Amino acid sequence: SRSIRLAVIPGDGIGQEVVAQGLKVLSAALPQDVKLETRSYDLGAQRWHATGDTLPDAELESLKDHDAILLGAIGDPSVPSGVLERGLLLKLRFAFDHYVNLRPSKLFPNTPTPLAGRPDIDFVVVREGTEGPYVGNGGSMRTGTPDEVATEVSLNTAHGVERVVRDAYERAKARPRKKLTLVHKNNVLVHASHLWKNIFDRVGQEYPEVTTDYLHVDAATIFFVTQPERFDVIVTDNLFGDILTDLAAAVTGGIGLAASGNINPSGAFPSMFEPVHGSAPDIAGTGKADPTATVLSVALLLSHLGYGDEAARIETAVASDLAERDAAAPRTTDEIGDALAARVSG
Amino acid sequence: SRSIRLAVIPGDGIGQEVVAQGLKVLSAALPQDVKLETRSYDLGAQRWHATGDTLPDAELESLKDHDAILLGAIGDPSVPSGVLERGLLLKLRFAFDHYVNLRPSKLFPNTPTPLAGRPDIDFVVVREGTEGPYVGNGGSMRTGTPDEVATEVSLNTAHGVERVVRDAYERAKARPRKKLTLVHKNNVLVHASHLWKNIFDRVGQEYPEVTTDYLHVDAATIFFVTQPERFDVIVTDNLFGDILTDLAAAVTGGIGLAASGNINPSGAFPSMFEPVHGSAPDIAGTGKADPTATVLSVALLLSHLGYGDEAARIETAVASDLAERDAAAPRTTDEIGDALAARVSG
Ligand SMILES: CC(C)[C@H](C(=O)O)[C@@H](O)C(=O)O
Ligand SMILES: CC(C)[C@H](C(=O)O)[C@@H](O)C(=O)O
Repeated sequence: SRSIRLAVIPGDGIGQEVVAQGLKVLSAALPQDVKLETRSYDLGAQRWHATGDTLPDAELESLKDHDAILLGAIGDPSVPSGVLERGLLLKLRFAFDHYVNLRPSKLFPNTPTPLAGRPDIDFVVVREGTEGPYVGNGGSMRTGTPDEVATEVSLNTAHGVERVVRDAYERAKARPRKKLTLVHKNNVLVHASHLWKNIFDRVGQEYPEVTTDYLHVDAATIFFVTQPERFDVIVTDNLFGDILTDLAAAVTGGIGLAASGNINPSGAFPSMFEPVHGSAPDIAGTGKADPTATVLSVALLLSHLGYGDEAARIETAVASDLAERDAAAPRTTDEIGDALAARVSG
Repeated sequence: SRSIRLAVIPGDGIGQEVVAQGLKVLSAALPQDVKLETRSYDLGAQRWHATGDTLPDAELESLKDHDAILLGAIGDPSVPSGVLERGLLLKLRFAFDHYVNLRPSKLFPNTPTPLAGRPDIDFVVVREGTEGPYVGNGGSMRTGTPDEVATEVSLNTAHGVERVVRDAYERAKARPRKKLTLVHKNNVLVHASHLWKNIFDRVGQEYPEVTTDYLHVDAATIFFVTQPERFDVIVTDNLFGDILTDLAAAVTGGIGLAASGNINPSGAFPSMFEPVHGSAPDIAGTGKADPTATVLSVALLLSHLGYGDEAARIETAVASDLAERDAAAPRTTDEIGDALAARVSG
């Protein structure tokens, strides 16, 4: 009989609350014969305050022994900025070589968008997840003096770029519109950008059916709000992907709906699925958090593990739920989770 | 009698066309007793094709001998990406120590915006102009091989950050709302970002009347489309400023309206004013380019040179012109320039 060994990192703030709903919907979606084993990891702000640990080696090791990881949200104002992000979230992405940070953006009917005219938005950002300015290669000297110099180094390798570009071409090829846009800044960041562009062009020769396009990151933000329907699949570096996917979330109903997968396509390490939003300490405990982003992340998780039908059922459930939402009658986190679970099992 | 010695770099594509209108409006705005001397520099794609020059030393020297520079746009698809940007535009910004890259964003009445509900947008981005990932400190090794490594280094100094942060506080203090937002990414780019944040906090103590705020760059893009009215003055690094100001332009009528000043507040070198848009080769020569961004850049130029009343007259002229625009009856570049000049002199 089949089984899924799932590691769960609820994390901080609303992370706990949304992960509970994600698990509820996951259980509802799974076929009877699939055994779901979950193990929860106490990582995040509380743990750090209590012990100083962000992600001890033993737990990193034990996380490896799973088919996937579901993460809620990490971060709290009481912890210095960067400590948990670098010591836990990014550490996981790097240690497990999550080089495909997959972030779909779709504007569902009846979902609020700040854009007039409700454009037809349905694209996927393939954000590189293990390189670029995120590598933590920086420092400062004469720190705190009037002569301080601080650096951040963006590291990019042919190995790292080619594998994510190839993944993006595969995804573009599998979609009806078969269009792939590279976003970078090749008129300024010439070295990193030329590496990206050369690989993008070379790999593209193996995908004659995919239409390609290049945009500077600044220009891309313009099109995100004036012509988002032009995008199908976007491939970009770690930092540009971070910025663009928040903007993408903003125009497709907000970060309450934005799902993501940190994927290691080789399967050498477990992939990790998480909502794009943060821990939102201001609404933690109020029942106001929307668990939909986590539920959609669970769909990405299922699809990654080969449960395509179950993933599709969750997406359909979310689409129907969104279509019937009434902004004047908001539901609690738990109520939305129950409604989605009911639709999925029903 | 007073005089302005103005260097003009029309550049490529629509640069020529919009600069002609900028000069027209400048002449119309200036008081009779001010003598305007212009000298035009043939720099850009044509020159590079003909001679291989981007910005020869002799011309860089001669540019110094001016009160200000008006630039149209640089760049053409026939020139490898980066050559003119790095060899001419950024070279000027760096050589003339244009550390304040000033980019106001205002949504004028009757101007199209992709945002539903037409929020009240009126903010200024103070983008650092001489540091960050724009310094050209990068390289690649094993270039073109499967083992290539390419780097881009963001360099940040206390000297460079403090002067631009101070400038931003001064601007915030002079505005009615007196609010300043720092945008960076201090949960990931910890070294550069902590330098920015520490200086931002320390200098802020000298400006108790200014309310301050910090946002990660990804979150800032969300607020640009969901709550742009929350911004008054924003200070940020060179690359984040590049990205954010294109997005800001997109939500306030498009880059056809976005003005900018590359300012050296010390006056040691001439400041340079340019529309945010590029050379738009696709519409060059068609008369479709909107010269308004250049005309508003001329207003920034006048204000920088101490002609505040004349700058205000141009802004009023633009506001009135925009208020009467009829999307169904587009005018040519020249017609818009004429209309603005007439309003300014009238
Ligand atoms: C929390 C932060 C480190 C993270 C990132 O920058 O990648 C977040 O913004 C995201 O997009 O997942
Ligand atoms: C053309 C390019 C080098 C430039 C920049 O990146 O600064 C442009 O995008 C701008 O914003 O002025």
